[in-house]
Amino acid sequence: MNELIFAGLGLNDEKGISVKGLEETKTADSVFMELYTSLMPDFNLQRFESLCGKKVKLVSRRELEEENGWGILEAAKKGKVVFLVPGDPFIATTHVTLRIDAEKQGIKTRIIHGTSIISAIVSLSGLHNYKFGKTVTIPFPDNFSETPYNVIAQNKNFGLHTLCLLDLKANEKQFLSINQAIAMLLEVEKKKKQDIVTPDTPAVAIARAGSDKPTLKAGFLKDLVTFDFGKPPFSLIFPGEMHFMEIDSLISFADAPVEFRRLSI
Amino acid sequence: MNELIFAGLGLNDEKGISVKGLEETKTADSVFMELYTSLMPDFNLQRFESLCGKKVKLVSRRELEEENGWGILEAAKKGKVVFLVPGDPFIATTHVTLRIDAEKQGIKTRIIHGTSIISAIVSLSGLHNYKFGKTVTIPFPDNFSETPYNVIAQNKNFGLHTLCLLDLKANEKQFLSINQAIAMLLEVEKKKKQDIVTPDTPAVAIARAGSDKPTLKAGFLKDLVTFDFGKPPFSLIFPGEMHFMEIDSLISFADAPVEFRRLSI
Repeated sequence: MNELIFAGLGLNDEKGISVKGLEETKTADSVFMELYTSLMPDFNLQRFESLCGKKVKLVSRRELEEENGWGILEAAKKGKVVFLVPGDPFIATTHVTLRIDAEKQGIKTRIIHGTSIISAIVSLSGLHNYKFGKTVTIPFPDNFSETPYNVIAQNKNFGLHTLCLLDLKANEKQFLSINQAIAMLLEVEKKKKQDIVTPDTPAVAIARAGSDKPTLKAGFLKDLVTFDFGKPPFSLIFPGEMHFMEIDSLISFADAPVEFRRLSI
Repeated sequence: MNELIFAGLGLNDEKGISVKGLEETKTADSVFMELYTSLMPDFNLQRFESLCGKKVKLVSRRELEEENGWGILEAAKKGKVVFLVPGDPFIATTHVTLRIDAEKQGIKTRIIHGTSIISAIVSLSGLHNYKFGKTVTIPFPDNFSETPYNVIAQNKNFGLHTLCLLDLKANEKQFLSINQAIAMLLEVEKKKKQDIVTPDTPAVAIARAGSDKPTLKAGFLKDLVTFDFGKPPFSLIFPGEMHFMEIDSLISFADAPVEFRRLSI
């Protein structure tokens, strides 16, 4: 039967995919994969190919965006195609267009979800999921924007946590560092003076969520801005109001300084 | 080596777990599992036991909460223990205490993430992740609260989408239905009259996210309130401002009426 299955690779390496996703890949007629929307630091294509017993065709951003995934759609008209995407297939909105195009051309589509960085970070931090407000991406300095600062301010105003994803160009191996992201926000503070992101603001920085050795470090920005977090991918949480259980988690698992106790509401 | 690994079962059935999670389970000295924090509709314990080749000890809410997971901690002092949890292990905050207790008793802990309903729903809907505000749970009528209405109002005020999880008691097989949830919100509207949740309000209802046959239905509340969504688990999204691409997704994949075109900003 011909169909196009979007399957999530999950996080970090070739074993982040679900058992179901791997099974569908094993029985596919063609297997495509993109690795540019997110970084999977320990992913190895050869190891994945031996795991699933299939040859995988790596697709570039150009093939997907400029050629509208033509090759994938053509293959899906002839047989069962699995298209593998880091994390969960549609958390990055890049591939929604491909799915819409497929359905318009009469190709049935299905999703096999994968672990997303969004829930992994929340889960790692021990902060309560229902207390997160809007998520924001902190861009590279050449795309400088005050939006991240404004989103953090807006969430804090309601006592909510802000998850900040740090921009990356996975193909070019460029990653905005946690130190750079903090420095940029502190610059905006100097201009806006709203007391939102100051050297004494608490934050939680996370590197390599989903790997065997994630780095989790809670602290005040004056300390985090020079901390060495190791390799990417990176993210940053600005907590809003914290329950003492959330602070307990940060002290136990994110090496938060004892001064965090005073932040409890 | 003795350690306690919290591993996510992901969604729906025994193949929702990641390949890595299954591998660690295969080599564990003891395997524990809870199935009460969420519903995995097609999960079968016997099938899971043959998949991992281990006997699994199912733990009740009482054992975990009243006895502080004593059995799990004792086992983890002697060997490698995997504790399996629906979705991602710490998205429900229930197990954070167990992890803190383990570390206090000198037991090393690790997390293997799983697919969470939170990202699956966003991914299925095609709505943009960074436009979601705070998430809220709609409680059973005997725990009636105006909070969900207020959260939807607060998010809408900033143009943001609201993800509503519908309360469940997985063990007792009790699930708040989408119809009940909508009816409750419409009741609050009658009292508050803020024009937030009216019969003409658009919403997206999702049943069985992560299964092979999820039901996705976008529409106006007057239509959704009587729609038959089939079996649980259920969730509901109240969109804020929608980009035309988001509306395209809802029309393509959630059977949204053409009137949704008029909602584009």
